[in-house]
Amino acid sequence: MAETFRPGPAGPVSGFMDLALAQARAAAARGEVPVGAVIVRDGAVLAAAGNRTLELNDPTAHAEVLAIRLACAAVGSQRLPGADLYVTLEPCAMCAGAISFARLRRLYYGAGDPKGGAVDHGVRFYNQPTCHHAPDVYSGFAEREAADLLRSFFRDRRDPD
Amino acid sequence: MAETFRPGPAGPVSGFMDLALAQARAAAARGEVPVGAVIVRDGAVLAAAGNRTLELNDPTAHAEVLAIRLACAAVGSQRLPGADLYVTLEPCAMCAGAISFARLRRLYYGAGDPKGGAVDHGVRFYNQPTCHHAPDVYSGFAEREAADLLRSFFRDRRDPD
Repeated sequence: MAETFRPGPAGPVSGFMDLALAQARAAAARGEVPVGAVIVRDGAVLAAAGNRTLELNDPTAHAEVLAIRLACAAVGSQRLPGADLYVTLEPCAMCAGAISFARLRRLYYGAGDPKGGAVDHGVRFYNQPTCHHAPDVYSGFAEREAADLLRSFFRDRRDPD
Repeated sequence: MAETFRPGPAGPVSGFMDLALAQARAAAARGEVPVGAVIVRDGAVLAAAGNRTLELNDPTAHAEVLAIRLACAAVGSQRLPGADLYVTLEPCAMCAGAISFARLRRLYYGAGDPKGGAVDHGVRFYNQPTCHHAPDVYSGFAEREAADLLRSFFRDRRDPD
């Protein structure tokens, strides 16, 4: 896969999104849909994960859900107040719900997902009255890199040589 | 908790929903929100689970998600075509998404959930263009028992003696 790493602008958001992109690349190398996620609290990484739905035979093993499970296990709680999630792709409805239940403070995502996203597309879950905790949402970080990774992955799957 | 078991009408739906209700009661006995789920294919139970979010420190450990993970592990696939999910409460957005990703054929649920449901309330996920597989949905089975379990649980928590 011809994919060039392009560092983003300096600053902590860029650094944590770079870690999420590294998780997405590692997922692609495993044959998984390349999405990566990192959870950070007080400047420390609590968890980092990429998609593992194929490896684990688990349709819920999206990067965000795995990162939430890891971070919750690390802190011994089902809630992560004050923690922020960095993910390369706009979360789907399942992950948007998990982020809400985990009480994550902020969501930073890379590329928007008009087909499956549930934050700024689709059900826009955080704007609904049946959502009882919404993170602050920031988007468009490393957008091109995140989207390029997905495009390359699906292009290679369609055209395997 | 004064909660009387009331068998539903005869038939397989009732039988599998009774198993889901038993999982919900077991969850209540563990101090978890009493929701239970069962996954069935070709008349055989592939998985049964109740909420374990507190025990596992995992906000994604809803009954439906745990049952899906168990059933997928049992069959060695991240998809469960031809399988049906019985759950005592209308699924939330997270679980509705997981059910879609697992390609479950039918969803039978007990009580509706106007506050957090995402099937017939809230985002009505299966009616949205960003949902790429929707199960057939049947509801209202053992509705009173399922709702009574939840009411008793939250009443006991508010008023612990």
